[in-house]
Amino acid sequence: MDDDLLLLILSSPSGAGKTTLTHRLLDDFATLHFSVSHTTRKPRANEVEGQDYHFVSESRFQAMVVEGAFAEWASVHGHYYGTSIAEFARARELGRRGVLFDVDYQGARQIRAKFRSAVGVFILPPSMDELERRLTSRGLDDEETIRQRFAKAREEIEHYPFFDYIVVNDDLQHALGELRGIVHAEQARRWRRARIAEGLLSA
Amino acid sequence: MDDDLLLLILSSPSGAGKTTLTHRLLDDFATLHFSVSHTTRKPRANEVEGQDYHFVSESRFQAMVVEGAFAEWASVHGHYYGTSIAEFARARELGRRGVLFDVDYQGARQIRAKFRSAVGVFILPPSMDELERRLTSRGLDDEETIRQRFAKAREEIEHYPFFDYIVVNDDLQHALGELRGIVHAEQARRWRRARIAEGLLSA
Repeated sequence: MDDDLLLLILSSPSGAGKTTLTHRLLDDFATLHFSVSHTTRKPRANEVEGQDYHFVSESRFQAMVVEGAFAEWASVHGHYYGTSIAEFARARELGRRGVLFDVDYQGARQIRAKFRSAVGVFILPPSMDELERRLTSRGLDDEETIRQRFAKAREEIEHYPFFDYIVVNDDLQHALGELRGIVHAEQARRWRRARIAEGLLSA
Repeated sequence: MDDDLLLLILSSPSGAGKTTLTHRLLDDFATLHFSVSHTTRKPRANEVEGQDYHFVSESRFQAMVVEGAFAEWASVHGHYYGTSIAEFARARELGRRGVLFDVDYQGARQIRAKFRSAVGVFILPPSMDELERRLTSRGLDDEETIRQRFAKAREEIEHYPFFDYIVVNDDLQHALGELRGIVHAEQARRWRRARIAEGLLSA
């Protein structure tokens, strides 16, 4: 059932620029559906319910786990995050050709375990110094949270071998060009286009 | 020895637009070295020795086969075609990051058998009618040659499962965008960038 949709996982340590790259990629590919995750963490000032996340209570999240509503879920920084199976159906209803998942390495691992055609992209900062600078300068979190996120970043980066592609976000346009390229390449995979070749042979 | 260079094979039936796409792709990627094949066929009016092909006699070609000078060679339409091993050294001397091979499915098969990281792209025409129209309208060949090329095209297309990617050349810009994407994606493969991730972890 999952072989027709391109399942594209974007993952990165905090501060590598994944959110900006995700939005820009979605602007370029109207055929991609953004999978809106559920989370128990509080919304940030600029986040919109149902667009960035479905913000739910811990008891609601746990009920969904018990119902089997999630394709993947994990606890990160003391909060729960999950991808509901309903997102796949929504992408199909909307006539999309792919689903983009913005998840951490635990989510990536679970999605890839369930859907063999899923493609994982890991976004890296150009350096650890630059990562620290970005985490500090975005002014979204307090000092303790920043310290935790930086420590977590190293742990995230250790999981790079989970992924098919690595994009270094040294320059937004360059990184975006590579992400676009990955979408084009994955859409051009032989098994996705075998029917076209067979069509020519039966003409 | 071959793992650092991106080995990109472009193949297609005659008339699918491969030559134009190859030239445009090389214009975009100065990091790609075009592998100049040897052939025993006569140069066409617009072809330049040492740039499009190395045009050699049949006896010279056979001597090179005996010397083991070829990474791959084959007989197509009654002429010999081959990729000399010297092309890899030349790409390295020029500091290129990849080599582009314009070969038929037999060449693709042999290169992939020798170099496991080689990536194969097969370019298809949008339809068999359009292919016939293009073979006729380019005015390069006589009627008998066109008939042979069209019959051969079907045989070529049957080999599409040899390739990693399929690009349909319905629109030059669209096909070129996909080819560019494939180069970007292959350069972003995790194993090519593992050293970057390890560099961050050892910082």
